[in-house]
Amino acid sequence: MPPPIITLTTDFGLSDHFAGTMKGVILGIAPRAQIVDITHEVKPFEILEGAFVITQAYRYFPKGTVHVIVVDPGVGSARRPILAAAAGQYFIAPDNGVLTMIYEREKHKVRHITNDRFFLPVQSRTFHGRDIFAPCAAWLARGKKPAQFGKVIDDYVQLGLMKPQQIARRAWSATVLKVDRFGNLITNIPVDEFPDLLTRPFEISVGLQRVQKLCSAYADAIQGELFAIAGSSGLIEISVNQGSAAARLGCGAGAPVELTFF
Amino acid sequence: MPPPIITLTTDFGLSDHFAGTMKGVILGIAPRAQIVDITHEVKPFEILEGAFVITQAYRYFPKGTVHVIVVDPGVGSARRPILAAAAGQYFIAPDNGVLTMIYEREKHKVRHITNDRFFLPVQSRTFHGRDIFAPCAAWLARGKKPAQFGKVIDDYVQLGLMKPQQIARRAWSATVLKVDRFGNLITNIPVDEFPDLLTRPFEISVGLQRVQKLCSAYADAIQGELFAIAGSSGLIEISVNQGSAAARLGCGAGAPVELTFF
Amino acid sequence: MPPPIITLTTDFGLSDHFAGTMKGVILGIAPRAQIVDITHEVKPFEILEGAFVITQAYRYFPKGTVHVIVVDPGVGSARRPILAAAAGQYFIAPDNGVLTMIYEREKHKVRHITNDRFFLPVQSRTFHGRDIFAPCAAWLARGKKPAQFGKVIDDYVQLGLMKPQQIARRAWSATVLKVDRFGNLITNIPVDEFPDLLTRPFEISVGLQRVQKLCSAYADAIQGELFAIAGSSGLIEISVNQGSAAARLGCGAGAPVELTFF
Repeated sequence: MPPPIITLTTDFGLSDHFAGTMKGVILGIAPRAQIVDITHEVKPFEILEGAFVITQAYRYFPKGTVHVIVVDPGVGSARRPILAAAAGQYFIAPDNGVLTMIYEREKHKVRHITNDRFFLPVQSRTFHGRDIFAPCAAWLARGKKPAQFGKVIDDYVQLGLMKPQQIARRAWSATVLKVDRFGNLITNIPVDEFPDLLTRPFEISVGLQRVQKLCSAYADAIQGELFAIAGSSGLIEISVNQGSAAARLGCGAGAPVELTFF
Repeated sequence: MPPPIITLTTDFGLSDHFAGTMKGVILGIAPRAQIVDITHEVKPFEILEGAFVITQAYRYFPKGTVHVIVVDPGVGSARRPILAAAAGQYFIAPDNGVLTMIYEREKHKVRHITNDRFFLPVQSRTFHGRDIFAPCAAWLARGKKPAQFGKVIDDYVQLGLMKPQQIARRAWSATVLKVDRFGNLITNIPVDEFPDLLTRPFEISVGLQRVQKLCSAYADAIQGELFAIAGSSGLIEISVNQGSAAARLGCGAGAPVELTFF
Repeated sequence: MPPPIITLTTDFGLSDHFAGTMKGVILGIAPRAQIVDITHEVKPFEILEGAFVITQAYRYFPKGTVHVIVVDPGVGSARRPILAAAAGQYFIAPDNGVLTMIYEREKHKVRHITNDRFFLPVQSRTFHGRDIFAPCAAWLARGKKPAQFGKVIDDYVQLGLMKPQQIARRAWSATVLKVDRFGNLITNIPVDEFPDLLTRPFEISVGLQRVQKLCSAYADAIQGELFAIAGSSGLIEISVNQGSAAARLGCGAGAPVELTFF
C-alpha cells in the first residue's frame, strides 16, 4: 500500500505556524501520509485564485489523493464544510465556490461534512483549517468512507461563469485569472475551445495593449516581445520572453481581456 | 512503527539552501523521518517571534515529535545547544530563551548538548542548524536517548515575563507578540486568564485606537470594523474583518497594548 | 530499503501550483519518495544562482539522491534535458550550465535524456519541470538505470570560470555569487584556495567599502561592523553582525569584488 497523499492549498502564507500546525494534526491521525503543499500563497480571501490553483494541480495527482483547500473568508460563520468526490480524488473545503472549476470539469458528488467525530475535540471559530479540514482529510486518507462524513447535497455554492462570454459574432469578453511568478497573465480562455487561435488572425486586448502574435514556446519570441501562448494550464497566457507581462501591462488578476477574430 | 516526526522552525527564509540542506543531513541519518516545516520566515534574530511560533504549533503534534528551533543570533559564540523534553516531545535549540514559553507551560527537563558524536564531523561556526541541530534531531528521532546527548542543567536562559503585567486595579500592560499573515495583531493576553473579557465592558488601547468590542468569529464583524477576538492561539487578537489591523493601526510586533475593565 | 530522495531546486516561486504539481507527478510514479525542496526562490532565469544553491546543498544528501534543478530560460527551445551522475548522486536539469559547479568539483558522466517513455504522455512547451524533469527523476528514483535515459555526451554546456581570476601578483578579481537571507554577500573566493587570508593582511574591495578584518564567527564582530568570514559554504562572505551587508554596501549578486594581499 503506498502512503496516502494529502495536499494543502491555502491563503495562510508561510510566515505563521498555520500550515505546519495543520500538518501536525494530520500526522497525529495518519502518520504515514505524504503531505504536499500546492501553495499557501493564495491572496488572502481570493476564492477565485484558490479555485484556479487547485484546478491546475489536481489532474497530476494519483487517484485517492485528498486535497484540502482553505481559502475561507467566512470561517466561523454558517458556511458549510464540504467533501467533494471527483475524478477518483477527494476535495475538502469550505462551501464558498472554491471548487467551482472542479465541478465544471468533472462528474462530482458533494457532501456536507457534519460528523464532528472527525473534528478536533475543541474547535476555534477562526482556524477551521486546523480544527476541521485537516483532521477530516487525515481520517479520509486513513480509510474512512465519504458517507461517514455527512449527507450528499446539491445546493453547494457555485461561482458565476468562469469562461469567456461571447459579446459579438467574433468577439469574446474574458478575464485574467492569475499572474504567475514570471509575470505571465493567465486568462480564462481555454485553447481547446478556441482552436481558431492557431489558424486565424486574432487580436487580444488587455490593458492598453493589443496582442496579435501566438508563440508556441517562450523561447520562440524575441526577448522583450509581448505575445500570446498556449500555457501549460491549457489556457491562453499573455507573456513577455524573459520579462513580466504583468509589469509591462500594469495588469493583474481580474483585469478584463477581449478576444476578437478578424 | 510510524515514521518519526521532526519539525523545523527557523529564521533562514526560503530563498537559500539552508532549510533544504538541513533536511539532507536529517535524511542521511533518519531516512524515514517525516520532516515538517513550521516556518522558516521568523524575522531574522527575533527570538520572541520564534518562541511564539513553536508554542502555537507543538501542541498539535504527536508525542515523540522532535522540534528543531534555530533562531540564533549568537551562532558561533559560547551559547549552548540544548535539548528540552516537555509534554512528551523534544525541543532542540540554542540556549537563548527561544523555549521560554514552553518552559512556562509545561513540566520540562533541559540538557546541555555536549556529545559531539551526534554532530557532523566538521562544524562551521556560522551554520549550526546544519552541523549540530539537524543531526542531533535525527539521532534522537532514530532512537538515541536524551541522556546520551549531555547533562541536565537548570541555568538555561529564560526571557523576561511574557505575560501581561498588572499596572492598576483594573488595568494591565500587555504587548503585541506577532502580526500574522492577515494583519491580525496577536497579543500576549490569554483569554482563559481574563474571562471577564466575555462578560464585562472593557477597552483595549493599541496604537491610537481603542477597541471595546469582542467578536467570536471574524465573520461576525462588519467588514472593515476593528474588534478584539479570542484567536485560535488562545490569545486576544486585534482584527479587522477582511482587512489588516496592523496596517490600520500602524502597529507591529512589540507594540504596547493596554487592557482596562470598566 | 530507505525511501528514495528527490530534491527540487527551481525558480518557480511558491505562489503558483508549479512545485506542487511536480510533486504530484513524482508521487504518481514513486509513491514512497521523500521529496525535499532546496529552494523554489532562485531569481527567475538566474542560472548562476541555481548553480550555487544546488552546489551548496548536494554534499549533505545521501548517495543515490536525485536532484532536479529547473532554472530554464530556454524551456521549449532545442536545449537538451540532461542527467548527470556525480558523487554517487544524480542531477536532472536543462543543459544550460546550471550544473557547472558540480562538474568543476566532481568526476561526472552526463547523458542527454532522449527516452520519452519516461516523460508525461503529453508535453507542454512551457512546463518541462512537470512534463519531463519530474517524471524522469521519479523513474530514476524507482530504479531505472541512467543508461536507459539516453547516451553519454561530452559537449554539455559549461559556464565561464566561476573562480577568482588573478589580475596582478597579489590581486584577484572575484564576484558576489549570492546575497543570502541575512544580507551576507557570498563571494566566489574559496577559503581553502586562499589560506593566506588567515595569516596575512589583506583587503577586499566591494561596493565603495574596503574590508580588512576576518572574523571566525558572526558573534565575534562588534554589532554593526563590516567584516569578512569563512562562511558555511567554504567561501568568503562579507557580513555585518546582526545586519545586512548587502543593504549597507548597496551590492548584490554579480557585484565585482577585488582581493589584494599586502
